[in-house]
Amino acid sequence: MKRTFRFVFLFVALALSIGAFAQKGFIDIKRLQDREFYPVSIYNLGFVGDSDRYFYTKTGMELVIGDKKGEKEVLNLKEGELKNTLSSFFSIRFVSDKEFAYLSKDGIYYYDMDNRTVRKVCDIPEGAEHLEVDYEHAAAAYTIDGNVWYSKGNSAPVQLTRDGGNGITYGVAVHRNEFGIDRGFFLSDDATKLAYYRMDESMVRQYPLVNTEAREAEAAPIYYPMAGMTSHQVKVMVYDAVSGTTTELQTRENESIEEKEAYLTNITWNPESTLIYIQKLNRKQNHMKMNAYDVRSGRLVKTLFEEKAEKYVEPESPIYFLPEQSDKFIYLSERDGFNHAYLYSVDGQLIRQLTNGEWMITSIEGFNARGDEFYFFATKDSPLESNMYSCRMKDGKIRRCTSAKGTHYNVAFNKKGTLFLDAYTSMEEARRVVLLDGKAREIRQLHRAEDPWQKLDKPQIDVFTIKAKDGTDLYARMIKPVGFDSKKKYPVLVYVYGGPHAQLVTDTWLAGANNFFLFLAQQGYIVWTVDGRGSANRGYEFESAIWRNCGSIEVSDQMDGVNYLKSLPYVDSERIGVDGWSYGGFMTISLKLKNPGVFKTATAGGPVIDWKWYEVMYGERYMSSPKDNPEGYEKSSLLNYVDNLEGKLLIIHGAQDNTVVMQHSLEFIKRCIKKGKQVDYFIYPDHEHNVIGKDRIHLYEKIYEYHKANL
Amino acid sequence: MKRTFRFVFLFVALALSIGAFAQKGFIDIKRLQDREFYPVSIYNLGFVGDSDRYFYTKTGMELVIGDKKGEKEVLNLKEGELKNTLSSFFSIRFVSDKEFAYLSKDGIYYYDMDNRTVRKVCDIPEGAEHLEVDYEHAAAAYTIDGNVWYSKGNSAPVQLTRDGGNGITYGVAVHRNEFGIDRGFFLSDDATKLAYYRMDESMVRQYPLVNTEAREAEAAPIYYPMAGMTSHQVKVMVYDAVSGTTTELQTRENESIEEKEAYLTNITWNPESTLIYIQKLNRKQNHMKMNAYDVRSGRLVKTLFEEKAEKYVEPESPIYFLPEQSDKFIYLSERDGFNHAYLYSVDGQLIRQLTNGEWMITSIEGFNARGDEFYFFATKDSPLESNMYSCRMKDGKIRRCTSAKGTHYNVAFNKKGTLFLDAYTSMEEARRVVLLDGKAREIRQLHRAEDPWQKLDKPQIDVFTIKAKDGTDLYARMIKPVGFDSKKKYPVLVYVYGGPHAQLVTDTWLAGANNFFLFLAQQGYIVWTVDGRGSANRGYEFESAIWRNCGSIEVSDQMDGVNYLKSLPYVDSERIGVDGWSYGGFMTISLKLKNPGVFKTATAGGPVIDWKWYEVMYGERYMSSPKDNPEGYEKSSLLNYVDNLEGKLLIIHGAQDNTVVMQHSLEFIKRCIKKGKQVDYFIYPDHEHNVIGKDRIHLYEKIYEYHKANL
Repeated sequence: MKRTFRFVFLFVALALSIGAFAQKGFIDIKRLQDREFYPVSIYNLGFVGDSDRYFYTKTGMELVIGDKKGEKEVLNLKEGELKNTLSSFFSIRFVSDKEFAYLSKDGIYYYDMDNRTVRKVCDIPEGAEHLEVDYEHAAAAYTIDGNVWYSKGNSAPVQLTRDGGNGITYGVAVHRNEFGIDRGFFLSDDATKLAYYRMDESMVRQYPLVNTEAREAEAAPIYYPMAGMTSHQVKVMVYDAVSGTTTELQTRENESIEEKEAYLTNITWNPESTLIYIQKLNRKQNHMKMNAYDVRSGRLVKTLFEEKAEKYVEPESPIYFLPEQSDKFIYLSERDGFNHAYLYSVDGQLIRQLTNGEWMITSIEGFNARGDEFYFFATKDSPLESNMYSCRMKDGKIRRCTSAKGTHYNVAFNKKGTLFLDAYTSMEEARRVVLLDGKAREIRQLHRAEDPWQKLDKPQIDVFTIKAKDGTDLYARMIKPVGFDSKKKYPVLVYVYGGPHAQLVTDTWLAGANNFFLFLAQQGYIVWTVDGRGSANRGYEFESAIWRNCGSIEVSDQMDGVNYLKSLPYVDSERIGVDGWSYGGFMTISLKLKNPGVFKTATAGGPVIDWKWYEVMYGERYMSSPKDNPEGYEKSSLLNYVDNLEGKLLIIHGAQDNTVVMQHSLEFIKRCIKKGKQVDYFIYPDHEHNVIGKDRIHLYEKIYEYHKANL
Repeated sequence: MKRTFRFVFLFVALALSIGAFAQKGFIDIKRLQDREFYPVSIYNLGFVGDSDRYFYTKTGMELVIGDKKGEKEVLNLKEGELKNTLSSFFSIRFVSDKEFAYLSKDGIYYYDMDNRTVRKVCDIPEGAEHLEVDYEHAAAAYTIDGNVWYSKGNSAPVQLTRDGGNGITYGVAVHRNEFGIDRGFFLSDDATKLAYYRMDESMVRQYPLVNTEAREAEAAPIYYPMAGMTSHQVKVMVYDAVSGTTTELQTRENESIEEKEAYLTNITWNPESTLIYIQKLNRKQNHMKMNAYDVRSGRLVKTLFEEKAEKYVEPESPIYFLPEQSDKFIYLSERDGFNHAYLYSVDGQLIRQLTNGEWMITSIEGFNARGDEFYFFATKDSPLESNMYSCRMKDGKIRRCTSAKGTHYNVAFNKKGTLFLDAYTSMEEARRVVLLDGKAREIRQLHRAEDPWQKLDKPQIDVFTIKAKDGTDLYARMIKPVGFDSKKKYPVLVYVYGGPHAQLVTDTWLAGANNFFLFLAQQGYIVWTVDGRGSANRGYEFESAIWRNCGSIEVSDQMDGVNYLKSLPYVDSERIGVDGWSYGGFMTISLKLKNPGVFKTATAGGPVIDWKWYEVMYGERYMSSPKDNPEGYEKSSLLNYVDNLEGKLLIIHGAQDNTVVMQHSLEFIKRCIKKGKQVDYFIYPDHEHNVIGKDRIHLYEKIYEYHKANL
């Protein structure tokens, strides 16, 4: 409140003195994360059972139900009414036209909308972790004290394993969440069978994190296989709840280390729950086999097809069985340079490529009722946007299902595929939810969030392309100071990421920027970002350009951005700073050290310094192993550029970082000391790879004050 | 050489332009540790056997021999002539009038001065560690792979233990080098028996240091008992080389934890090698028993006397048997408030106090030939100085043996006590060695080091006393900028230590300051230091004033210094910074947080933040245990003052610090983050409690640049 008062005061004072330039106010760095500076959302978008009635929830547990004629029903689901809900923000899912399911502390419950009654349909012990839930079948898999449990309906929960712990891990994503793996449990479609990963890390070197919360600090080691080192070994187990038996899938062709260390990715059940498909990838990540295993015997039934690449194959999505023809499935592959859909028969025969072109499918979202069309998100209209499309399989005809320009991040459709609930954001819309008909025509607006920056002096954000040296278009974002005057000179802060699986410039609210960048612009900086080679959503060649040579082409692309900046009359070329985290930390230090004199200040968080200290999966995909690519490792290691360090560089690291371990920054600091180079360092003692929560404000201040003092 | 040339150039240029103010040159921060900026020394001062001939060595292995008439003989001991010497700087000791002994890689050798021949007198395997050597008896104790070995003459080395390692430690000082303990082996006077510590740390919590040099970082735990926690357990074993038996001294009265954790300090053999005296101290450190043990049976023979104190008893020196009356010994005690000598009979009867007064004995150095006088260093003439004195035991008459004002740090005397080789330093003499007669009259100067600062613009150093609030005199040192002008205003850097066992202001070269402080003065800072309560050499009351209340009286004394500074017209009170390491780091942060607004900048290295994280011996002596003194711990914990943090504070820590572990600074940083307070942090990844060697220059730059940028 104090702060608001000051803003009002400022407004009056400046209005009087400057007149025309009506200042609304600057954001306080301490308030960058306040809820009021984020667009309001609605949650749980979906359709009620097979009906045409849609639903969503608002914060405060308000359930709204409507149809194309209007919003009919608003239920205030007070906490008392739902038993033991996990939090005030909760997830619901309709299991029929009148019942929705939700998860509580002790099980799955169904809420009857007509009678306003609640019944428990599945018992889950309190304290269960890593839950995988099938609401329709009232089943769940989870861990207790590291071991696997299974619950179905009102039967007593069953413990499936006893050897969890001491290097044997259940219930979590294996292979460090690479290859689209985001969980450890896979219930069959009828929920009577459970496939689960068993990860043995006992042979993996442990990285010694340290817990300083204890009375006396204690080691808190994590299993962390580094590039080229011994990796963990994963198995897939299948439990059959009917027979009560557990089978190990025979995923290893022999007992070689290569077979033991193979990546078992994208586990998919067939609709009959008799087979499991695993996209098995060799450790070098250049050879994938699409294998089908019989769950009863555990035996390999067939290798449906294989995929090889000179650089890497990166299977990131499961297979999608056609709902009405379970002998066919859709598979997504980057094999033609862009992620596209391929129709296969279950014997492994490619029927045909369903989509193609210089754009990519980012996910498949389902099928229409007849099963002759599938819905997907793609970059077809622009790599900055994400729209939902449908593809008619018989002729490959593509139709756009969402109409507004921008990034559609949550789209639900009714069973018939005639109604779409569409949540999206764009540079023009902070957040908006509309109901569309089957021809992408807007029926009604359900929600629209005001841009929180409307009440502040919002810096101008421009998105455009620049040319890389070789003529490639690169998307760039420039945020200009409030009251920008092209006759003045402004300092620039370059914010960089530069690595794969990320895209910073998008057609979203603030164009992918955040409140901190707009704060910086209010403080007089031009904030600049380019998505160069290595970044996502531009196709395989664009993203894989960094292969075996990180810190090269993507650094060059960033320098093309800097050279563009330097060509602008309003850029103060002597005052360019750079900031980045993780791969962006690697980029920040690479940029500073490989281009002495260009960046006056640099702040690098959780930076990779030498890829030999990064983990095996991501590390070897992009850099091969240190043994196979010694030149690449040597050339990219920032230890080798310390002699070039001049000016100010602040490295920041979370002491609990289990992604980019502190060995990186500590060894870099050590090298700087040996070389007599001054460098600054800061640690967030209880943070992992990112500084999150309330402490992030401290980080913003740290970064801002560093550039402010030195740029 | 380049640098020298520049200095010459500067001299000429300034001599022409300024005329009267002839500038010699400023020191380059990169060269602060260069040998040329330290006074030249001579080494190995002593007398040849029982003769009146003295000897010393110069670097380059030049052995000089002389007597009161002059220097007679100079031997260039080329490396080839001495077999397997350990280094070019080596230690020698005369075992007769014509032979000196030295240690090589594989044993003890005697060098015959007349024949210039060498013979090996004792075999020690290469790689032996923690050597304790008796040159006269050609014997040694040492460890190999953590186990105890003993060598005598040409007999084969004998292995005495087999259980070293895994928490059992031999050969090193136990109890963290407190209580005057600086080694783990104690040979009897005839070297036929060996007493040694056996330290069992298996019950002690391990602190997880991390070694980032390894391919993947690995835990490098150390046993580190923190205040109030379970401590290690020490035994004293005695090996008899004649009988080949080993006996454990029965130092425990019962099997209680208090007995097991008792401190076994100041092990002393009686001259007959039949008894061992141990000053046994309880864990609370307020009750010492002077115990004699029979080495054959291991049994306690007698508790000669006990010493108790309300605060703490701190036995720091062995007992000294009178050479001609082995039924009497001298014991040093602080019991009357100053460390003085007491004459005891071996049955434990106090015969009389030998010395007294408001000064203290710092060490006993030996007896005269008749055995009726003993020599000691003391602060009798000034707490800033250290002189050697003799005391005639029959009447307590004290005579000063060294004449020059200053700090005499190495004084050797001949058997008769008629000649003294005296090495000293003072504010006026960088380093000087003279030969004195028995009446402290100078016979001849043997060595005089030029003050290296003579070739530079040397800042003025003043030492004087100021008054604490309660009227106590405190010694202070002020270093003024070159070309000091009392009409100008200067910023001040306060350098502080403040803890026990240390004295920063002394009558030595640079008055105890170092090249870095003089560099700072050349850069325009007044560099200020006060030895307040808690510091050494002012007596028990002065030093123990911090008891159970660290961060109180000694902070107050420092503030009296700051208030004095503020009263000076040439001090810029708005620009006061503070710097300190270890206890001085604790003081630096205490000063800054407890006196908001006073210190604009602060740099604290390896700081204690909360005494509960400090080790058990030192920690409990000054703070009791956390359970016994919760208020003291709470009041001194710097975590509780973070709200007061304003302005710039840089904390520096060695990541391998095994004295003040990183838990201190990490938890402080964390508290700052939680409180939204900006603080700066830097780590020296491969340094322990001090940043030593070449990297210390980096530290100097870090500290200097921090104050320069912010003060």
